[in-house]
Amino acid sequence: MDDENTVYIGKKETMNYVMAVVTQFNRGSKEVVIKARGRSISKAVDVAEITRNRFVPNSTVFNITTDTEEIEREGGEGTVNVSSMEITMKLE
Amino acid sequence: MDDENTVYIGKKETMNYVMAVVTQFNRGSKEVVIKARGRSISKAVDVAEITRNRFVPNSTVFNITTDTEEIEREGGEGTVNVSSMEITMKLE
Repeated sequence: MDDENTVYIGKKETMNYVMAVVTQFNRGSKEVVIKARGRSISKAVDVAEITRNRFVPNSTVFNITTDTEEIEREGGEGTVNVSSMEITMKLE
Repeated sequence: MDDENTVYIGKKETMNYVMAVVTQFNRGSKEVVIKARGRSISKAVDVAEITRNRFVPNSTVFNITTDTEEIEREGGEGTVNVSSMEITMKLE
């Protein structure tokens, strides 16, 4: 999986990430991976749903996986567990 | 799928829902479905990850699906689209 085909969900507005996914498909990618952690996970699902419902009708949510990542606490004192998610979208 | 085996994620603390899932497995369910909408989706993933990492080591995230639901706007003026998610957990 080429890293170019991965969209990382952060603090921007949802539509920024939708456009990033749509752009990947328009450039010829057959597969786009959406990655998110923590509270951004809900936004990642919105991005996938809006993409397939409104912009790329022949795209589907092909696979979703979850994991737990250890992240350094702010200030560097120990680690905290954060849920992560990967949504793989494909063209039908 | 028996509705008893379904845990709906709402506004309570995450651990309340973890305990609900763990209780289902302890009562003999081989499969538990976690359902969430909108911002609760991130919490649903936390619930699944905490359950399998800390409480039911032989459970796995078997399948995850997403959808878009039309919900009536508060005040009843039209509808708004909300993402939804179902996480199916199973015993190995």
